[in-house]
Amino acid sequence: MSRTSRFVRILVTQMTRSTRVNVNDLVLVSVDDHLVEPPHLFDGRLPHRYADDAPRVQRSDDGADVWVFNGVTIPNIGLNAVAGRPKDEYGVEPTAFDEMRPGCFDVHERVKDMNAAGVLASMCFPSFPGFSGRLFAAADDKELALAVVQAYNDWHIDEWCGTYPGRFVPMALPVLWDPDLAAQEVRRVAAKGCHSLTFTENPATLGYPSFHDPYWDPLWRAVCDEGTVVSIHLGSSGKLAVTAEDAPVDVMITLQPMNICQAAADLLWSRVLKEFPAIRIALSEGGTGWIPYFLDRLDRTYDMHRAWTGQDFGDRLPSDVFREHFLTCFIDDPVGLQLRDKIGIDNIAWECDYPHSDSSWPNPGEDLLAAAAGVPDADLEKITWQNAARWYSFDPFAHRTRNQATVGALRAEAAGHDVSIRSFDKGRTTRSSTEIGSLASRATA
Amino acid sequence: MSRTSRFVRILVTQMTRSTRVNVNDLVLVSVDDHLVEPPHLFDGRLPHRYADDAPRVQRSDDGADVWVFNGVTIPNIGLNAVAGRPKDEYGVEPTAFDEMRPGCFDVHERVKDMNAAGVLASMCFPSFPGFSGRLFAAADDKELALAVVQAYNDWHIDEWCGTYPGRFVPMALPVLWDPDLAAQEVRRVAAKGCHSLTFTENPATLGYPSFHDPYWDPLWRAVCDEGTVVSIHLGSSGKLAVTAEDAPVDVMITLQPMNICQAAADLLWSRVLKEFPAIRIALSEGGTGWIPYFLDRLDRTYDMHRAWTGQDFGDRLPSDVFREHFLTCFIDDPVGLQLRDKIGIDNIAWECDYPHSDSSWPNPGEDLLAAAAGVPDADLEKITWQNAARWYSFDPFAHRTRNQATVGALRAEAAGHDVSIRSFDKGRTTRSSTEIGSLASRATA
Repeated sequence: MSRTSRFVRILVTQMTRSTRVNVNDLVLVSVDDHLVEPPHLFDGRLPHRYADDAPRVQRSDDGADVWVFNGVTIPNIGLNAVAGRPKDEYGVEPTAFDEMRPGCFDVHERVKDMNAAGVLASMCFPSFPGFSGRLFAAADDKELALAVVQAYNDWHIDEWCGTYPGRFVPMALPVLWDPDLAAQEVRRVAAKGCHSLTFTENPATLGYPSFHDPYWDPLWRAVCDEGTVVSIHLGSSGKLAVTAEDAPVDVMITLQPMNICQAAADLLWSRVLKEFPAIRIALSEGGTGWIPYFLDRLDRTYDMHRAWTGQDFGDRLPSDVFREHFLTCFIDDPVGLQLRDKIGIDNIAWECDYPHSDSSWPNPGEDLLAAAAGVPDADLEKITWQNAARWYSFDPFAHRTRNQATVGALRAEAAGHDVSIRSFDKGRTTRSSTEIGSLASRATA
Repeated sequence: MSRTSRFVRILVTQMTRSTRVNVNDLVLVSVDDHLVEPPHLFDGRLPHRYADDAPRVQRSDDGADVWVFNGVTIPNIGLNAVAGRPKDEYGVEPTAFDEMRPGCFDVHERVKDMNAAGVLASMCFPSFPGFSGRLFAAADDKELALAVVQAYNDWHIDEWCGTYPGRFVPMALPVLWDPDLAAQEVRRVAAKGCHSLTFTENPATLGYPSFHDPYWDPLWRAVCDEGTVVSIHLGSSGKLAVTAEDAPVDVMITLQPMNICQAAADLLWSRVLKEFPAIRIALSEGGTGWIPYFLDRLDRTYDMHRAWTGQDFGDRLPSDVFREHFLTCFIDDPVGLQLRDKIGIDNIAWECDYPHSDSSWPNPGEDLLAAAAGVPDADLEKITWQNAARWYSFDPFAHRTRNQATVGALRAEAAGHDVSIRSFDKGRTTRSSTEIGSLASRATA
C-alpha cells in the first residue's frame, strides 16, 4: 500500500468513526436524576382534615432529618445526596438537609447545578416515598393515600418542574392499591403534560399482583392511551441484591444495575407487551453494556424453548420486541456505547444521576465524551437528547433555542457558581463496618 | 485509493480477522457437561453397615425414576436430560431412564455421543446430589454423608472418567458440613488426579456460612495447594431467579446464566481472593457477553466508593483481579466472542452442556464457528481447549495425538452412531401450565 493511500485510509477511518463534537456543543437531557423532597412539599396541598396526617420532616435524636408518615420514619440516605461531597464522606447513614448540597432539594439551586454541569433538562425520581410511592400506598386510609399521591404529583409538576419551564421532564408517582384510580391519575397528570410514571421493578415483591396478573390492565391501558412511559428505576423492587448479610457493601453496589434485567425479562415474556402493544418501558439507571448479551439470551431462549413454553411473537424475535418497548439508560458505559448498534441506537438514553453517588456531576459531558470515543455525532445526538425527547414527549427547545441549550451556553449562565468538591460533614456519624447487614440496619434505624 | 491497494487492504483484513479453521480441525474440550447418575453408582462402594441407607433409584407411582436418600426423593428433571429429543418434548417433569438418551447415564454411550459431536473431553457436573452435594450434606449421620460423598467421587473419577482415559476432566463433590474434612477430600481426590471441585454460587443461601466467613479457609487453602479450580455452576445457590410465581418459565430460563454475576461479585470483593491469591474460580455456564460490562462496573464501583468502603487492591484494578482468578464459560455467545479481549482471551472456555436443554450437541463445532466469525485461529485454540487444559491441569494429548483428537478424527470413529433427533416420549405426562410456580411444584412433587 502506498504512503498516500495509507494516509487516505486513516483519514477515512477517522472521519467515519471518531467524534468531532466539542463538549460545549452537546445538548444534555438526563432521564434519571433524583430530588430530595423539601420540608414544605405538602404545605397547602392537602385538605384541612389531613393537617395532622400529612407527611412531615422532623429532626431525629441523632441529628438527621427524617420524614414521618403513617407511623413510619424514613431517613434520607447519605449515598442518595452526596453530589459535590468528597468520596470519603459517602455512606448510607441517615443525613440532614444541612449535610447536603442545596441543589438536592432546592429547585433554584438545582438549576444552577444543572447549568454549571451543562445539563439542559432532567427527570427527577422521588426519594422518601420510594420509587413507586409504596410508602403512601401503605396508608390504611386510602383517601389520605390518594390525597398525598396527588399532592406530591401536583407539587412535582407545578412547582418543581413548573418554576423553570423547559428544564425538567415531569414524572408522576403511581397509585398502587387501585388500578382504576391508577389509570385516572395517569390521565389526570398527562393532561398537565406529564408523560412519565415511576414504577416498580416487581410489584410482586412489594406485595401486589405481579406483572403477569390482569390486575394492572387499567393502568397499562391508560399509559398506552396517554403516551406515558413506565419508568422503572433500579432498586425499586424493594429487594436489594444482597448475597449475604456479611458481604461487603461493594457487592450490592456492583450488582444493582444489572439486577434490573429481572424486570426486563419479566415484562418481555409477559402478556403485557402482547396485549398492550403501545406500552413503553424505561430501565432507569440499568446500564447498557449487558443488553447485547441479554438480547442474544432472549433469542436463544426463544429458539430452544418456545416449542414447549408456548411463547409466540409471530414473525418477530424477542430482541425485536425488546427494541419496540424498552428504553435503556446509562451514566458511564463504554461497552454499551461500543455495542450501541446491537442495543438499538434509538433505545439508548444518557443520564446524570445527580445527586446520587454514581453521578458524573459536575462534568457529565466530559465523562460522556471520554467513554464515547468513536461514536459518530448523529448517534451522540440520539443518545444525549433526541431519544429522551421522543420517548418522554419532551421538546427541549420549546423555551430556548438550541444555541441557548448547549453545555457551553448553560455553563456561561452559571459563571461563578461554585461546584468545587467540599465537605458537608458535621461530625455526627462514625462508621465501623461496611457489611451490608450492618449498614442496612443503620440506614433504616 | 487504487484498486490494488484496496484489494491488499481487504486481503490483510481477511488474514488478520477471519477464521480459516475448518470445523474438522477443531479440538473441543468442554468445561461443562452433566451426567445423570446410573442406578448402580453406589454398588460395592459403601461399608456394609450402610447397605440400607445408600442412595437408591426407585420407580415412582407416575412412572418416573427417582433417587431416594435420607428420606428425600429427587426426580431427574426432564430439561436436564433432553439431548437428542425434539424441542416439544422439553419440560421440567420428572423423567425415567428409558425416556433419556442412554448417553446421559451410560459412559460407553456417552463417549459415542461425544465422538459423534467431535468432543474430545468433557467435565461432567452431578445431577441428583445437587451441584454442591447438599443432598448428601443434609444427612443427619455425618459418617454416612462422608462415605457417600467419597463413594460418589471415587465412582466419578475411577469409573466414569477412568473407563476412557483422556476423555473426561474429573470433578469432585465437596464436603459442606466440615471445612477440615472438605480440605482432606480435596487433597485425597487431587492425589487421584482430580483438580476440579463443584461448589455453590452462594453457601449462605444453602444455610452455611457465606463466602465472607473464615469457616471455609481450610478448604480454600487446600484448593490453592492442590491447584484445584472451584467450579461454580449457574443455579447452584439453591435459589432460582424467580420474579413471581405466575411468571412464565421463559423468565427463569433467560435469567439463570447472568444470575451468576452475584457469585462473581460476592467473591471478587471478598477477603477470599485477597488472602488466598492462588485461588481460581470457574463461572460454569455463566455466559461471557455480560462480562465486559461487569468488569467496567467493578472498576467504576472501586473508583467511586473505595474511599468509604475500604476496598484496596493495591496497584491493580478489580478487573485485573477478576482476570487473575476467574474462568468464564459459554455455550453460544457471539457478544462474548466479539469482546473477547475485554474479557481476557486467557479467561474464556467453551462448553457443550450435554445433555441439558441449552446444549449445542450434536453440532457444537459448527455452532461455535458460526458465532466466532472473525476470531483468529490462535484465539479459537485458547477458547476451545488450551484455557481449559491449563486451568484444569488436563493434558488433552496424553492418550491421543492431536491429529487423533480433532472433531474430524473423532467423528470418523463414530461412523454409524445415530445422533438423529427422535422422540423418547412415553406418553406419561401432560402439561397445562408453564408458570414457574406450577412447574416448580410438579418438578419437586
